[in-house]
Amino acid sequence: MDKSLKIFAPATVANLSCGFDVLGCCLDTVGDEMIVSLTSDPGVKITKIEGADLPLETEKNVAGVAVQALLNVYNKDIGVTIEIYKKIKAGSGIGSSAASSAGAVWAVNHLLGNPFTAHELVTFAMEGEKLASGNAHADNVAPALLGGFTLVRSYDPLDVIKLNTPKDLMITVIHPQIEVKTSDSRSVIKNNVSLKKAIRQWGNVGGLIAGLYTEDYKLIGRSLEDVIIEPLRSILIPEFESVKQAAIAKGALGCGISGSGPSIFALSKGEETANNVADAIRSVYNQTGLDFEIHVSKINNQGIKLI
Amino acid sequence: MDKSLKIFAPATVANLSCGFDVLGCCLDTVGDEMIVSLTSDPGVKITKIEGADLPLETEKNVAGVAVQALLNVYNKDIGVTIEIYKKIKAGSGIGSSAASSAGAVWAVNHLLGNPFTAHELVTFAMEGEKLASGNAHADNVAPALLGGFTLVRSYDPLDVIKLNTPKDLMITVIHPQIEVKTSDSRSVIKNNVSLKKAIRQWGNVGGLIAGLYTEDYKLIGRSLEDVIIEPLRSILIPEFESVKQAAIAKGALGCGISGSGPSIFALSKGEETANNVADAIRSVYNQTGLDFEIHVSKINNQGIKLI
Repeated sequence: MDKSLKIFAPATVANLSCGFDVLGCCLDTVGDEMIVSLTSDPGVKITKIEGADLPLETEKNVAGVAVQALLNVYNKDIGVTIEIYKKIKAGSGIGSSAASSAGAVWAVNHLLGNPFTAHELVTFAMEGEKLASGNAHADNVAPALLGGFTLVRSYDPLDVIKLNTPKDLMITVIHPQIEVKTSDSRSVIKNNVSLKKAIRQWGNVGGLIAGLYTEDYKLIGRSLEDVIIEPLRSILIPEFESVKQAAIAKGALGCGISGSGPSIFALSKGEETANNVADAIRSVYNQTGLDFEIHVSKINNQGIKLI
Repeated sequence: MDKSLKIFAPATVANLSCGFDVLGCCLDTVGDEMIVSLTSDPGVKITKIEGADLPLETEKNVAGVAVQALLNVYNKDIGVTIEIYKKIKAGSGIGSSAASSAGAVWAVNHLLGNPFTAHELVTFAMEGEKLASGNAHADNVAPALLGGFTLVRSYDPLDVIKLNTPKDLMITVIHPQIEVKTSDSRSVIKNNVSLKKAIRQWGNVGGLIAGLYTEDYKLIGRSLEDVIIEPLRSILIPEFESVKQAAIAKGALGCGISGSGPSIFALSKGEETANNVADAIRSVYNQTGLDFEIHVSKINNQGIKLI
């Protein structure tokens, strides 16, 4: 059994337009690195964080809290140290906290000989999400842990399903380096929706999932529509509509808000289109004067991996 | 080219718990029979209706209206006669009007050498539904025309998708012979729903469709939950909760309201379970003193067919 390992903890895109709070997918080219070790000294210690200004105290760190949740079930006397090399910026909307939580519990599980299922790891990682956002969301930690596209069918009880990933599907993500306060991105959402819009939304969720299984890229594109959250949240993201129009014009299947933003994602068929979409989005944002990062990635069907 | 043919126009179950207004499936053992003929005398004539007290006037008959919509696009000078042998009771909630509308346009299309796609036939049949209920619903005519399970992803524009049908899936339907007024089954539904319930509903829609594609019967069962419509409409159906409990206790994957009721459906894996579920439901309804019919059917993956 290894005593120490190094992992890649990927970024993830939650919601995917119609699938607010239930759908997510895993990226391949963006992610943190973590070195996780078993030690003879009981307790969870965050020994190093590079690339972000995050707390080292276990109980204030999402990775620390998630691993502690795992050890509380497995064996409280085990010692774990965690080094985190952040590449995913906090507040980007591509699952920065989820990568740390999910990566840490995945690594500890691996070091212990995999006593827990991926499904169980989701529940531990959700404790990290709870610390990060106040809500124990699973829509980023699930794709990070299971890879590919995931559906959180239910939170009560937790029921996470790994969906099929069409092989030519690519994702382009732009992260405008602005701060959108979580409280703002939440306060624009209404507690009630019209039944008519809700029906349209679940029709699209159905279409998207059917499209993923049948690898029908056009159906995936037609289903990437959000009539409930996007119209409200997109006002917080500069040039959202211009980015979306530019992406679609260059052949993207669909384009929407990644998680609660401010990142914007677009799905495309094939690498060439995904790169063209990146160029088009870059042109839009070059005119804003804002800093931004753009990522192009295939869908990572494996999730967290050893490096 | 045939001048006359006889068809089986199947009953259908719409909504399927979580999929209000978007999902439906097609039955095999319950359906109308129709004889449809081309004649030299222009216009659509309903020449005979057996088994139901329905209007013979073309413009008041759902089959007449649907065929007229088709001929308005194809050729107004064609003459069609329709005989309808109703086996599906009107107001049962298992797509009685849809069977007539869909069956008639399917038959005429067949007689004309299939100039229209199934998708186009859905739009014509929807005109019959509009006459029947005031709304151009597609969630019964789509499974009647396409067979199996169908998703109406969108009404604007119309986008109907045929889903996968797991081979061992069986359906049990009880039709309590009571009248539930359409106005009552509509008036209990609220125009707004909580976002929280809507999210739970589209999580279930996603789970059900994933379950249909992966033939994961347990996932199908877990997803057959309706937190929005069923709690409101079930009060109009005598012994709904008892029927549901009895069905689940006998191994049904799930149980809910068929369409707008009063019929109740249950999905099961395998014929033996579906029959056991029928027996259990029968026991519940035998105590009510109400008349009822029970149907057990495999899922009809073909839809309307020649007989």
